[in-house]
Amino acid sequence: MEISSLGEFGLIKRLTDDIKPCNQSTVKGVGDDCAVLRFESDRQMLVTTDLLMEGIHFDLQYTPLKHLGYKAAMVNLSDIYAMNGTPRQITVSLAIGKRFKVEDIEELYSGIRLACREHHVDIVGGDTTSSLTGLAISITAIGETRPQDVVYRNGARDTDLICVSGNLGAAYMGLQLLEREKSVYNQQRQQCVGKQTDIDFNPDFSGREYLLERQLRPEARRDIIEALAQAGIRPTSMMDISDGLSSELFHICDQSHVGCRIYEERIPLDYQTAAMAEELNLNVTTCALNGGEDYELLFTVPLADNDRVSSIPDIKVIGYITREALGKMLVTRDGQEFELKAQGWNPLKEK
Amino acid sequence: MEISSLGEFGLIKRLTDDIKPCNQSTVKGVGDDCAVLRFESDRQMLVTTDLLMEGIHFDLQYTPLKHLGYKAAMVNLSDIYAMNGTPRQITVSLAIGKRFKVEDIEELYSGIRLACREHHVDIVGGDTTSSLTGLAISITAIGETRPQDVVYRNGARDTDLICVSGNLGAAYMGLQLLEREKSVYNQQRQQCVGKQTDIDFNPDFSGREYLLERQLRPEARRDIIEALAQAGIRPTSMMDISDGLSSELFHICDQSHVGCRIYEERIPLDYQTAAMAEELNLNVTTCALNGGEDYELLFTVPLADNDRVSSIPDIKVIGYITREALGKMLVTRDGQEFELKAQGWNPLKEK
Repeated sequence: MEISSLGEFGLIKRLTDDIKPCNQSTVKGVGDDCAVLRFESDRQMLVTTDLLMEGIHFDLQYTPLKHLGYKAAMVNLSDIYAMNGTPRQITVSLAIGKRFKVEDIEELYSGIRLACREHHVDIVGGDTTSSLTGLAISITAIGETRPQDVVYRNGARDTDLICVSGNLGAAYMGLQLLEREKSVYNQQRQQCVGKQTDIDFNPDFSGREYLLERQLRPEARRDIIEALAQAGIRPTSMMDISDGLSSELFHICDQSHVGCRIYEERIPLDYQTAAMAEELNLNVTTCALNGGEDYELLFTVPLADNDRVSSIPDIKVIGYITREALGKMLVTRDGQEFELKAQGWNPLKEK
Repeated sequence: MEISSLGEFGLIKRLTDDIKPCNQSTVKGVGDDCAVLRFESDRQMLVTTDLLMEGIHFDLQYTPLKHLGYKAAMVNLSDIYAMNGTPRQITVSLAIGKRFKVEDIEELYSGIRLACREHHVDIVGGDTTSSLTGLAISITAIGETRPQDVVYRNGARDTDLICVSGNLGAAYMGLQLLEREKSVYNQQRQQCVGKQTDIDFNPDFSGREYLLERQLRPEARRDIIEALAQAGIRPTSMMDISDGLSSELFHICDQSHVGCRIYEERIPLDYQTAAMAEELNLNVTTCALNGGEDYELLFTVPLADNDRVSSIPDIKVIGYITREALGKMLVTRDGQEFELKAQGWNPLKEK
């Protein structure tokens, strides 16, 4: 179905008509000049926003629209958890190129709604418009926290332990894998131009499913926030790993005016990440340090919490905070020390 | 200066480094995973968002970047006022094509910051990334209101008076004027291709400045909200006129389950709008009904408020609310009645 047959208001109605808010704090959702929210009197609000552009943040040649919607929502929810908060609402703005049909946008929206359902988040508004070229997705997430619970990037102190959840580098490896198969496919397609043959292309992702899932369908770590709360641990600083561990460590160290010392052998890796790095002749530690989009949590806890934090599944202590003058150091497996570099993904740097 | 020489974080630092929040409700602005806000316990929060795409919402051939930034912020603030609220914070996301320099983005940002300064609004976050093609601007505004003050679109009742602020159709006329001069300029340029002559192009906008200002530099009507509050008038329904009077009247009538009757002779017009319509051979009433982007307020008040609302400068009563069965009617100057049509600007309709 052509989007033009519905128009803006028709499309919005179709996408949002059956949305029923599930949070008490949502007073009024889609359908007026603004959404109206009301939080308990002892709460602070958290606000975060992301703008995803086709060709920069995603490639529709290998990204299913439902996954894209899921991920677009999830990366914002991840930012709310990274403040030790609970996400409650999102707004969704879409700019849609001419090649998209109503069914495509429904597919994208179904992914956004799935992410919202899993995290008990309401879609309360947005904007739907057209684009001369590719797809643009702008999501703003709103969350809440008690003032005493909010965790900033600037609270890390000397001797604090540095922890990460899950494992690192897998999303980056998933991207490498998808890009490789895409270029093989495109080569084959070029060879078929003008011939009567079909492309016989069956990329074999078996044994690599985890990498694809990490790239295409990241999960915001609510479970880690809940586990820390249950264990009575309040991180001294925290953020999510979207641009790469190195880059995020720089943010925490710079804003907290401290240094850090992390150990290569303690950086958590999945087996598939290591196998894929070997196949591609990449240094897996470099991938884990600088590959983005894992959406794991990076946080620091007081040294005294060592036992408690180490007993939580899927959290690993990778090093500790030092005085600022000691720099930001990586200790390799063979005991050498290197200064960390923030080489995370940067959409505005020269390629 | 090339944006790539700064990178994402460098550019953000340059744009936001000297921002100092002016609202008590801003606990933490730019610089963490989320902004942190805290409102008084008796307040509701308002959230609205807009996504503006180059080539769809703005044409950089005739839109100065500073004006664009000002307008991008203003259209969101207008939505907050339209709920009878006070804007407090915005987030600003930009996707920037390769042809832009650091100075261009500073220019755009200076317009956003000017709008924020005038309305005492804090920039508390955002996202800065690149675009394969044009510029994309996504702004989310957050405001507050007491629960008893919020005004929705669905509260209009039979016999309520329909009011508008300012005058209508001028922004649309400004757009027609700019588009006309652009096409003259582009024709002249084409004729000069390959010749050694310079283009001698001096568009004469004298006597039309007001139309350009309305298109390029709209003002959100805080003054009207304040005047209504001072007069002790609480509108029964309200919205801002972004897509055109007809289209907005449809929203209010449909959501309130009422009809309306407005009078052509009472629709407020500026002299320049009328003169320009005549020059372009357009029906000025059609332009006022369907031309968008005036960002005036459309609202209804109880009949009993007639004297009080009529005494406020720059507010005009243009008709009244009827029972739903009586339809949405326009009474022309010669006493004929026509059914209103919602032909407002629709970015997703076939042109």
